[in-house]
Amino acid sequence: MRSSKQFEELRELSSEIQYYNAILSLLHWDQETHMPPGAIASRSHQIAQLSAMIHEKKSGSKFKAALEKLISLSTGQPKAKGLSLTERASLREWRKEYIRATKLPVSFVKTFSQVTSEATQIWATAKKQNNFKLFAPFLEKIVELSREKAKILGFEDHPYDALLEGYEPCMTTHKVSVIFKGLQKELTRLLQKIKAKKQVEDGFLHEKVGDKTQMEIGHDFLAKLPIDMAYTRLDLSAHPFSIAMHPQDSRITTRIIPHSFISNIFSVLHEAGHAMYEMGLPVETWGTPLSEAISLSIHESQSRWWETLIGRSLPFWKSRYPALQKMLPALKKVPLERFHRAINKVSPSLIRVEADEVTYCLHVIVRFEIEQALISGSLQVNDLPAAWNAKMKEYLGVVPPTDTEGVLQDVHWSLGDFGYFPTYALGNLFAAQFFTAFAKKYTDWEQRVAAGDFLFIREWLREKIHRCGRMYNAEELVKKVTGKHLNERAYCSYLKKKYAKIYNF
Amino acid sequence: MRSSKQFEELRELSSEIQYYNAILSLLHWDQETHMPPGAIASRSHQIAQLSAMIHEKKSGSKFKAALEKLISLSTGQPKAKGLSLTERASLREWRKEYIRATKLPVSFVKTFSQVTSEATQIWATAKKQNNFKLFAPFLEKIVELSREKAKILGFEDHPYDALLEGYEPCMTTHKVSVIFKGLQKELTRLLQKIKAKKQVEDGFLHEKVGDKTQMEIGHDFLAKLPIDMAYTRLDLSAHPFSIAMHPQDSRITTRIIPHSFISNIFSVLHEAGHAMYEMGLPVETWGTPLSEAISLSIHESQSRWWETLIGRSLPFWKSRYPALQKMLPALKKVPLERFHRAINKVSPSLIRVEADEVTYCLHVIVRFEIEQALISGSLQVNDLPAAWNAKMKEYLGVVPPTDTEGVLQDVHWSLGDFGYFPTYALGNLFAAQFFTAFAKKYTDWEQRVAAGDFLFIREWLREKIHRCGRMYNAEELVKKVTGKHLNERAYCSYLKKKYAKIYNF
Repeated sequence: MRSSKQFEELRELSSEIQYYNAILSLLHWDQETHMPPGAIASRSHQIAQLSAMIHEKKSGSKFKAALEKLISLSTGQPKAKGLSLTERASLREWRKEYIRATKLPVSFVKTFSQVTSEATQIWATAKKQNNFKLFAPFLEKIVELSREKAKILGFEDHPYDALLEGYEPCMTTHKVSVIFKGLQKELTRLLQKIKAKKQVEDGFLHEKVGDKTQMEIGHDFLAKLPIDMAYTRLDLSAHPFSIAMHPQDSRITTRIIPHSFISNIFSVLHEAGHAMYEMGLPVETWGTPLSEAISLSIHESQSRWWETLIGRSLPFWKSRYPALQKMLPALKKVPLERFHRAINKVSPSLIRVEADEVTYCLHVIVRFEIEQALISGSLQVNDLPAAWNAKMKEYLGVVPPTDTEGVLQDVHWSLGDFGYFPTYALGNLFAAQFFTAFAKKYTDWEQRVAAGDFLFIREWLREKIHRCGRMYNAEELVKKVTGKHLNERAYCSYLKKKYAKIYNF
Repeated sequence: MRSSKQFEELRELSSEIQYYNAILSLLHWDQETHMPPGAIASRSHQIAQLSAMIHEKKSGSKFKAALEKLISLSTGQPKAKGLSLTERASLREWRKEYIRATKLPVSFVKTFSQVTSEATQIWATAKKQNNFKLFAPFLEKIVELSREKAKILGFEDHPYDALLEGYEPCMTTHKVSVIFKGLQKELTRLLQKIKAKKQVEDGFLHEKVGDKTQMEIGHDFLAKLPIDMAYTRLDLSAHPFSIAMHPQDSRITTRIIPHSFISNIFSVLHEAGHAMYEMGLPVETWGTPLSEAISLSIHESQSRWWETLIGRSLPFWKSRYPALQKMLPALKKVPLERFHRAINKVSPSLIRVEADEVTYCLHVIVRFEIEQALISGSLQVNDLPAAWNAKMKEYLGVVPPTDTEGVLQDVHWSLGDFGYFPTYALGNLFAAQFFTAFAKKYTDWEQRVAAGDFLFIREWLREKIHRCGRMYNAEELVKKVTGKHLNERAYCSYLKKKYAKIYNF
């Protein structure tokens, strides 16, 4: 048998799994957007059953046999001759995944999926009712399962490493801690500088805007992005998210806060960034890791790119502000520059997804440290609200008056996603590094964006990042695109330059 | 091993299949309601893959072995002792299904599913563009596959029997032909009587009503029915349908015709009737045939019950008309009786789903005869529009000016649902027979409905029909509930009595 035929067999098995993953994503999407609330019990069963089946296929003997024909599972050495570079990369990633997948027993995966599916609904109620106690027993169970997961997966240094690896394969708790320490120092210094200055005025951002107008604005901003509307759609959910079933079916959601229309706009830009990444993955390698996203950090670099680097820039609003003023006539008396300063107001606040660019990573660092403590066992779930509030006070100088605005704000823990949060901060660092390379090539990017041209940006991202799939890991990619390793400097210098202008220092 | 433990094992296998069927239903629901149009190719793959997997499980050796422990596949004789009546009924149905399922090879099921999934999209475009030629090659392929299906499934008399059995297990082409002949005679006679009378005026039903108002009306009518809103939802689609994932997740869609708001209302009542049936199936026997609908005809009896027997009755509108007048102020000058006559106007028309109660079954008979001809090979797809138009002229006296309003109007053939249409007419006959028994018990039903009480109706349906699941077949059920076999007399006498009043003869 020629290696290309063996590869094709493996790809077919993998493609089958990918389609089941897509179906699983639809079950989640539906649950968060349109599902009748009483359907939750049956949906939990469906998700648990399908997840277990996918896990069986990923770790099954059929897949193993097909994989072993082409690569040694123990050494990672390719066995077949004549494999192309991209085929070797696929094999490398398949092997890594297979090894990780076979560590978790099917029964564990099923339990994990069932518990978290129910917990997500409970979390939504608990958040609505500001009732942490309602959620606590579910979270306890999830922490317990996550610790068990870390133990099963194995780790050298910290159990948290095993969880982090699931979202950001080239990272360790130690590496992240070092970068976050440097980042925190810089952010705190910048925040002090800003606090000493006169605060910008943003009252006009908090006029009430109705649901209908906000959805119209959301759709308008989405449609003006270089995104193919035949492959996406926008819905409402409790927490904005993006979910891709395929490069040709990549959906986003937003949420509406009546007194913060700008939050909806940034949610749309953010989630559209994720969606464009998925839509830029090469369809022709569907079923292989070459048409999958590298990692959550790189994913987040794409969403933050559109939300912040582009979406909070002056050139972007030069192009989009007139249309917004038309939809919100009250803004007609607010000049562009004042609007731009307002949407970049820096002020330590309670909610991560509403945070400004300077304090955002501090929210993440709070979660990163709490997660480590929960997983290592040094913090108990019952003590979590107190620990949360203490850390918020320490890093941001604010204390949530309710758990709804505090420890209950994010959906992630109900989904069992420990290890996920750090990628939000890392995404900003990757984005800033990519942007440096982009701005070096397109020295006229500000003029072009101000004129409403966004397509060249997507094309650059597509070529440099999207189309690579998992050919490289995150560290390799940033080195390839920018010539430098991951670090916090590009992000910090971007922030310093930008906010010196806005706050006049 | 005790028989109850063996039964539990079988039920678990069956329940797993049911959950996969539910997931498959969600893929279809999403495709028809919210899916981005560009996702169709990947969705077709998902549906084909999942359908094939379900088919494998249904016809697999694991299921067979579990089934054979309890019942003889060749004779249908139960093997285990101590089985309850309901367990015996489940085994009977499981055996029947297994035998049917094992006749079709996996590859055939996969092809059928893939072809029809794509054809459904093509049909929608062809209908929109009045372009039968676009759809014809797909339909040809589907007819060919359906004939192959009939051959594989086997039949004694007519290949159409094999297809009909899939929707209405206790029917044959011959039985249906006999009933339809009698029905057609009676309907034609009644139609002549009506045609001789002065036509009712219904211009006010065709004032333009916007999408938003129509959706509000749809939601209002749905909410006033005895349906639990926690388990259902209403969306828009090209063709109204209902789809159930579980008794606790049973969804409906409607469509909006700007110049026929009443069409939307009747769609909602119709689909809600289907949804209430599914929601009334016993959750406690989930996974067995005892929590499944009997057949399409019985399903249709439930939808037509709410759409016509209740929904087009004077008492119903005594209760609901004031609210409708509030939502559509132009109706304030139209008295209730005039409105009631208008919504019961009899007039041979082009579109089945818009047809009145007298001509509705004639539309079905046209399709029944054409389907037989296509399947037997006496009619070619290319000659279909001409054959359609000729039959419409013969039975209804009208000829569609476009294929959009003619042969392309229904989605069924694109889905490969040959044998489905007759159940629409049979449903009316079953409904009328059930209604006779209902009205005998509740002699005051008109007063109660006029006062806005609908719950007692649903309770009666739930007790007599919904909760039976597949304990009985359709013929047995109608005998049990009404004391009579299926016949067209109850329906014809209901129509004669009703329309004598409306048309004064």
